[in-house]
Amino acid sequence: MKIHPMWREYPALQTELEQVLTLIDQNITTNNVPVRDAILDMINAGGKMLRPAYCLLFSQFKQTDRHKMIALAAAVETLHTATLIHDDVIDESDMRRGLPSIQATFGKDTAVYAGDYLFTVCFKLLAGYASDLRSVQQDGKHMEAILNGELAQMSTRYNMAITIDQYLNQVSGKTGQLFALSTFLGAYESGNSLRFARNAQTIGLNIGVAFQLLDDILDYTASSSQFGKPVQEDMRQGVYSAPLILALREAPEAFAPYLSKRLKMTDDDAKAVDQLVRDHGGIVKAQELAKDYTDTALTAIEKLPDMPVRAILSQLTSSLLNRQS
Amino acid sequence: MKIHPMWREYPALQTELEQVLTLIDQNITTNNVPVRDAILDMINAGGKMLRPAYCLLFSQFKQTDRHKMIALAAAVETLHTATLIHDDVIDESDMRRGLPSIQATFGKDTAVYAGDYLFTVCFKLLAGYASDLRSVQQDGKHMEAILNGELAQMSTRYNMAITIDQYLNQVSGKTGQLFALSTFLGAYESGNSLRFARNAQTIGLNIGVAFQLLDDILDYTASSSQFGKPVQEDMRQGVYSAPLILALREAPEAFAPYLSKRLKMTDDDAKAVDQLVRDHGGIVKAQELAKDYTDTALTAIEKLPDMPVRAILSQLTSSLLNRQS
Repeated sequence: MKIHPMWREYPALQTELEQVLTLIDQNITTNNVPVRDAILDMINAGGKMLRPAYCLLFSQFKQTDRHKMIALAAAVETLHTATLIHDDVIDESDMRRGLPSIQATFGKDTAVYAGDYLFTVCFKLLAGYASDLRSVQQDGKHMEAILNGELAQMSTRYNMAITIDQYLNQVSGKTGQLFALSTFLGAYESGNSLRFARNAQTIGLNIGVAFQLLDDILDYTASSSQFGKPVQEDMRQGVYSAPLILALREAPEAFAPYLSKRLKMTDDDAKAVDQLVRDHGGIVKAQELAKDYTDTALTAIEKLPDMPVRAILSQLTSSLLNRQS
Repeated sequence: MKIHPMWREYPALQTELEQVLTLIDQNITTNNVPVRDAILDMINAGGKMLRPAYCLLFSQFKQTDRHKMIALAAAVETLHTATLIHDDVIDESDMRRGLPSIQATFGKDTAVYAGDYLFTVCFKLLAGYASDLRSVQQDGKHMEAILNGELAQMSTRYNMAITIDQYLNQVSGKTGQLFALSTFLGAYESGNSLRFARNAQTIGLNIGVAFQLLDDILDYTASSSQFGKPVQEDMRQGVYSAPLILALREAPEAFAPYLSKRLKMTDDDAKAVDQLVRDHGGIVKAQELAKDYTDTALTAIEKLPDMPVRAILSQLTSSLLNRQS
């Protein structure tokens, strides 16, 4: 079991995140050895565990049963892992979290069932630990919104007319809703009012969108500076993100010859697109957009009750959304 | 919308099954057109709808809110369809319900997400209409058991030493548990006691296992008589079912040269295996096993309260488990 080093600064949270991993391990009870190994490898590969972390943090505004909150944090991490595994099947990705992806190592069949199995583990944990049906209903709505985000993204692949609003809707779905579910569950299930939990949910949504925006920006800034050439696997697969979309609308005719090549795009083509994105202000504009969401989240966090966890939320969110890699 | 002609004999049930289909249609709200079309094509392809039918029948021992029961019946059909779609991805099946499968028509990506999307619709329906958390917890357990059945089947592919108990465990999982969930939900959610609902669950499990056994027997008897030659796609893919398993243990050395060819098995090899299965009594023994499960289910049905629905359950189960095609 390996916890991401970013949690060393928060030892109490780190201990609980370790308990989340242990509980997930205990819930992977299938006798199918490849599937079990595949899942456990991935769970223990040192992912950031941001979603369970936010769930646990938002549960600290009340004194509450920690085992229950750890189980719900495990449920959101399980759901997140299930979506990653199925995304890798669809993108035919060979790597995930620095390791070969499940579908690369064990094949597509194992990956499809491993994802499905994790969905059922998530379902079992949510149903087993939620305090009432409302909470489970809320989970169902979030899960549908997450899938709708994925599906919307799939249906706009290679669409050069994609608008920034369409992109933001997709990101709100696929990333935002899972963060929103995490903060909602943490707040609501620890005994806060529904009003407080809805506020937590909105904060989670904004953090999630800002986080995804930043991830998409780093795909441009980190890849060209650190590796010397743009990789841009998503772009080649037709998944256009904020920096490209915001630059593309300024000069569609400049991008068209490259993007229309789709999977046949060469490394030089990708470099040219990378340069066009910079030339047309795509990165700066996307950074401004990310800053809007970050500021909205941080302002709302500042209005939370004045307890030690508020400072942690503020510090974590600030460093997460201002990271350079 | 097309309901299987078998329901013409049961007009009240047929009407409710049509409402189940309408409700599923209304719940497929994704904007992703290929995924929506793919799911609706499959839902409306005239599948037997046995699981929702049993759910609805077991809800008729009490006067209850029909809309709620239709929603729960829709949940089980949605879950069943999700598992079929993912099974087709894994088996790379080109046909399903007499139509091209989703993965053949729309590709693997659409099929993976279409299945995932249906899982979330199922989750939403269960959480939205279940009467309490216990029921949702029960759903989670069934879903895990279904996946464990699929996973166990996957892990014994091409295993010539597979025992009939292993096979029955897998069938109890992948088919039995979904029937058991259907009858449990129908009984419990319509206001019967937990004891009554557990009995319904056991009946559902036995019906499900008998149904799968019969399906596996018909793969041998129907294919050779109706199409002139054995197809045996499952066997070539290493999924060994009761007739083969029961014959194989009598004369493993006779089967080995053919089965060891795996996917390279020719049509003549498949014919030879088909004949060996018959020669070693595989079909007769599997029929005896199916009869055991059928009789157990029918005997338990006879002990249910003497209401009109009992006669329907008895007649339906009897004809379903004695069908010739």
